[in-house]
Amino acid sequence: MAEELFCQSAAVLIKCKDCEDRRENVRLTVGWQSSSNPVHKKELTVRLTDDTNPFFLYNLTIGEEDFQGLKIQQGLLVEFSAFPHRFIELLDQCIQEQSKEVPRFMLQLATQHHPLDCMPASLDIVETNPFKHLTHLSLKLLPGNDNDIKKYLAICLQNVKIENSSLQEKLHRTEEDLTKRLSITQQ
Amino acid sequence: MAEELFCQSAAVLIKCKDCEDRRENVRLTVGWQSSSNPVHKKELTVRLTDDTNPFFLYNLTIGEEDFQGLKIQQGLLVEFSAFPHRFIELLDQCIQEQSKEVPRFMLQLATQHHPLDCMPASLDIVETNPFKHLTHLSLKLLPGNDNDIKKYLAICLQNVKIENSSLQEKLHRTEEDLTKRLSITQQ
Repeated sequence: MAEELFCQSAAVLIKCKDCEDRRENVRLTVGWQSSSNPVHKKELTVRLTDDTNPFFLYNLTIGEEDFQGLKIQQGLLVEFSAFPHRFIELLDQCIQEQSKEVPRFMLQLATQHHPLDCMPASLDIVETNPFKHLTHLSLKLLPGNDNDIKKYLAICLQNVKIENSSLQEKLHRTEEDLTKRLSITQQ
Repeated sequence: MAEELFCQSAAVLIKCKDCEDRRENVRLTVGWQSSSNPVHKKELTVRLTDDTNPFFLYNLTIGEEDFQGLKIQQGLLVEFSAFPHRFIELLDQCIQEQSKEVPRFMLQLATQHHPLDCMPASLDIVETNPFKHLTHLSLKLLPGNDNDIKKYLAICLQNVKIENSSLQEKLHRTEEDLTKRLSITQQ
């Protein structure tokens, strides 16, 4: 992701057609990326992953034009440029509420089929008030295919490897530094 | 891989139909695994990967029956159970010779097409004597498809993550231990 705006793990209620509802921790990543179209355009990407399941991947890319459709369909009052900020505010609210017994704001992911069927899933931000369930936002995300997952895992692997070498370096430096200080003190 | 017998990086001469020959470091992994057939059978797996290219993956699985074909085709004199040992001996010889200007034993990988074409590649162990090139062994490996690469990367990611947490733990223990010893010495 070219410009990451948000990357956090959150409790999501997963509603699947043929299985019971379950709560799982899902990592939500929101960011801007430049589109590969000839005209330079910024696109908003939303990605769902699971730190404990490498094959869990849902993606959404929204361009300026797609946003106009979403805006009309869901009665949004903000412009495309302000949308990510509002969306992240809602995500933060869900995270703040997730440890409560009756959370007011909640993330729900409705998948109709097995991820391999490539049917879109619906990520909903739902407020529950004493009267009803209010859907603040509903986004359609596509499950990643083998090629998407392969590319995503390659990036993860690269990042963890970089973290690994920096840890190795830090360990080496710490050992060296403290051994030196220890020998100076002992003299 | 259930029982790993060999896992090392080696210089391989890559011969591709539409590009120039190039030497690259390729990781060779050889091991036994139990087949998923109803009858319990051991299968030999050979895997080529590239530590610097997450999408490079070639696989070969040889069962007892496949081996009989290979044995006849290539005039081998060993049985299936002794084959991995001999194969690894040849690999070791290639690795020992790879830094020499004119290596006597050499690994070659002949790929006829782009990996995505899913055409098998040929991994050859070639001895060069003053008279000719002698092929000691020639194995046909299949390039991994997106699904194979996805699964392979998930395992890599898991292993690097485990390494990462053990490094983090070691760093923490080292800092703690040496700080304690330092404070004792300073007293």
